[in-house]
Amino acid sequence: MNQDYVKIFDTTLRDGEQCPGAAMSEDEKLEIAHHLSKMKVDVIEAGFPISSPVQFQAVQRIAREVQGPIIAGLARAMKADIESASMAIAPATRKRIHTFIASSPIHMKHKLGKNPSEVLAMAREAVKISRNLVEDVEFSAEDGTRSEWEFLRELVEAVIEEGASTINIPDTVGYTTPEEYGKLFAFLKSKVKGAEKVIFSAHCHNDLGLAVANSLAAVLNGARQIECTINGIGERAGNTAMEEIAMAMRTRKDFFGIETNLETTHIARASYLVKNITGMVVQPNKAIVGANAFAHESGIHQDGVIKNRETYEIMKPESIGLKSNRMVLGRHSGRAGFKDRIIKLGFVPKDDELESAYNRFLEIADRKKEIFDEDLTALFTEESRKSDQDIYQLTRFEISTGTEKPPSASIEIKIKDKIKTETSKGDGPVDSMFKAIDQATGIHPLLLRLLISPVTEGADAMAEASVTLELDDKRVVGKASSTDIMEACAVSYIDALNRL
Amino acid sequence: MNQDYVKIFDTTLRDGEQCPGAAMSEDEKLEIAHHLSKMKVDVIEAGFPISSPVQFQAVQRIAREVQGPIIAGLARAMKADIESASMAIAPATRKRIHTFIASSPIHMKHKLGKNPSEVLAMAREAVKISRNLVEDVEFSAEDGTRSEWEFLRELVEAVIEEGASTINIPDTVGYTTPEEYGKLFAFLKSKVKGAEKVIFSAHCHNDLGLAVANSLAAVLNGARQIECTINGIGERAGNTAMEEIAMAMRTRKDFFGIETNLETTHIARASYLVKNITGMVVQPNKAIVGANAFAHESGIHQDGVIKNRETYEIMKPESIGLKSNRMVLGRHSGRAGFKDRIIKLGFVPKDDELESAYNRFLEIADRKKEIFDEDLTALFTEESRKSDQDIYQLTRFEISTGTEKPPSASIEIKIKDKIKTETSKGDGPVDSMFKAIDQATGIHPLLLRLLISPVTEGADAMAEASVTLELDDKRVVGKASSTDIMEACAVSYIDALNRL
Repeated sequence: MNQDYVKIFDTTLRDGEQCPGAAMSEDEKLEIAHHLSKMKVDVIEAGFPISSPVQFQAVQRIAREVQGPIIAGLARAMKADIESASMAIAPATRKRIHTFIASSPIHMKHKLGKNPSEVLAMAREAVKISRNLVEDVEFSAEDGTRSEWEFLRELVEAVIEEGASTINIPDTVGYTTPEEYGKLFAFLKSKVKGAEKVIFSAHCHNDLGLAVANSLAAVLNGARQIECTINGIGERAGNTAMEEIAMAMRTRKDFFGIETNLETTHIARASYLVKNITGMVVQPNKAIVGANAFAHESGIHQDGVIKNRETYEIMKPESIGLKSNRMVLGRHSGRAGFKDRIIKLGFVPKDDELESAYNRFLEIADRKKEIFDEDLTALFTEESRKSDQDIYQLTRFEISTGTEKPPSASIEIKIKDKIKTETSKGDGPVDSMFKAIDQATGIHPLLLRLLISPVTEGADAMAEASVTLELDDKRVVGKASSTDIMEACAVSYIDALNRL
Repeated sequence: MNQDYVKIFDTTLRDGEQCPGAAMSEDEKLEIAHHLSKMKVDVIEAGFPISSPVQFQAVQRIAREVQGPIIAGLARAMKADIESASMAIAPATRKRIHTFIASSPIHMKHKLGKNPSEVLAMAREAVKISRNLVEDVEFSAEDGTRSEWEFLRELVEAVIEEGASTINIPDTVGYTTPEEYGKLFAFLKSKVKGAEKVIFSAHCHNDLGLAVANSLAAVLNGARQIECTINGIGERAGNTAMEEIAMAMRTRKDFFGIETNLETTHIARASYLVKNITGMVVQPNKAIVGANAFAHESGIHQDGVIKNRETYEIMKPESIGLKSNRMVLGRHSGRAGFKDRIIKLGFVPKDDELESAYNRFLEIADRKKEIFDEDLTALFTEESRKSDQDIYQLTRFEISTGTEKPPSASIEIKIKDKIKTETSKGDGPVDSMFKAIDQATGIHPLLLRLLISPVTEGADAMAEASVTLELDDKRVVGKASSTDIMEACAVSYIDALNRL
């Protein structure tokens, strides 16, 4: 099919979420999906519905509430999977079933225990069933890059016959090179009967650092869809990073001759959102969205290295939605200025959220002279995470530590309507506090990770704490920010408990 | 020149150090340089000697103390630069002058204010001067990928005539694509008179996420040296990541038909070292060295996704020096076991360091049941950072914070032989503590960054604090780790002050 742009198929919520520590709640997935829609991605892969009721429900809610992009559900080449996916995506205006089966000798033998002709028959059947349920069916040949080309050709022809309209060739283990991957697409485009009726799609992993280059090589050889995630999150070394793909094609339009329809000015916010929700940090030297990617945006002032911006800059920070002028608010800023700024930062605040965020802002403004956009984003993100269903609320705490006496913490928590007070010692102030909270709640989750990072500069900067807890196989991330690092830890721990 | 392997030219200490926040002390540079030698990199670019006396001295010390690799010093195409570089590298057994000049129309016009024939003459002269001082001269055409090919050919021919033996074509602004960059090398290799006598070199930046792919495309078209950094640190989105280049060629030797001489089993330690020294975090989904890159090494246990290791893994964690079995020490472990473990982790401990590290280990073992390799690495790295020249030492501290009274800190510091005590309030416990320390020392540096990250899991985990301070244009990073987050902050702040 001739298509004069490259489709963006976002799989942050499916392949991205599959990586250790990136589990998201339903509300968080919704928030990201709404932002993806605003960015004008073409397809949102919302999840793998049969894998759990939680997954099913999240896909269904996204299908119901998010307008614009096609909503896709993943399904193995099995009837039950496909039916589950079909039900989950049913409420969407535009929907897709994405079914897959492994096609490489090693996967067919060790994972499936099937021979090639069995796999071929299963793929055919899966696409047939899918097409009886929806119009738009995508087929993926898992571990495509380690498959035999002739078998791949046969397999792809078969699923096109059955009505698949998107053919995805994943580099599941992140093994291929741009030259090889490009040639594979050229081969399939020219040899497969019916190739002209479908869109070929690339799906790459970054194990050798080549995901973006491989995806672009596929585009140069006829692929018209790229599967990718925000910040390149995903299993192991992650998936193709959406922001890199989109900005490479835009910056080098002269070379690629084609680009995506993505609203790139929403990239910075998307990156922040995914980082914040998953707790997966973005390194400062990450392309496009790292803190240093645009030199003058690094926050740390430059040593006068930059003479003429165009001499060294090939992209403008504004193109991904970074403002060069970070407006500063302070204690005398009124509600109107505050609201205006929150909206400009890309939030859609409800009145009650706005009011409570404004009060919190005044509290912080008392302690911190200048409030930057980053502070506001942290603050508002935190406010919008609060929910009426929250069971626990931290009402009071005291911490002391030092060289003279062991670290200890006293806390007071409101549990529904009861107030509980506890005191505990520990190996450090954080440990003491978490122990005191555990005593008060009677819950003893496993602390998997505690990350503390500064939102802005200076010793009076806001600190953002992110706590990952696990209990009975459920994993949650709690967040909070404060100028008091201990308060940020305590509140993020409570936030995580509320999500358990 | 025919060479059956690809040289690794490490520029972590030069281009890597140039990025915001990555400044290193002389001792730290030495430590990294020794490790690079152990890894068998071919060339270490130790710095840019003329840029400052500090740079000059570090290059000179590396040239004197580090055996094995060629030690290179950077120099603009100017006599003073070249002479400075030559003096700095003089003590090295094997040495190289690396001289460069911009060759793109935009750089020649806006940065140099020179016309092409002037640039050509300067390049010729620079190489001539260099060759009078050393045998081994590398020439770089800055912004090579945005230069006119014909001019580049002329320029390269001229410097080869003058005796340059390595020709580097940098993609200074991270603008090129694998196809273009490959073609440029093929063009130069085939058209340049004297091409057969020299080694062509690739130097890429990752602005569009293509640094690794571009470097590999150069290799496929005849380049036999790659300039790169550990963890891909460097200005903006960084440089080509050494670990990705090396592992891509090793894993896909069947495709590239060539690889490096790198001892890849030292990669994990190199990555840790650079992360630890620069404070530049490595994202979990970073290829090769991210915490999730090898699924089962992520620390967080897997949900039974992995069926057969070979089905999904194309590299073994052991190949980069990650141990699958993390031996655990506890309070009953003796000196011998401790020393043995420290050596296995790649350290070369001196007796006094070992003794003080062992005492620190016992202190921590009192508070933390299991001590993992990561804890030991943090602990030992910290011990080996201590120096007899340290002016400040934290002898006592007390911190309290909470909802009832403002955060406050009391500290006692030994300044040379005097004891000073101070108390301060602040916006948070960290702010209070830093203020109290500033009062005691009378120094008021600018706090640029405070990062706290867990070394291992659990609330009793060791936390590692990294503080970046600036005073009078000097920027330093302090580090410390402790099970008490407040102690880690205080000690890292003091560590930074000692480095100022």
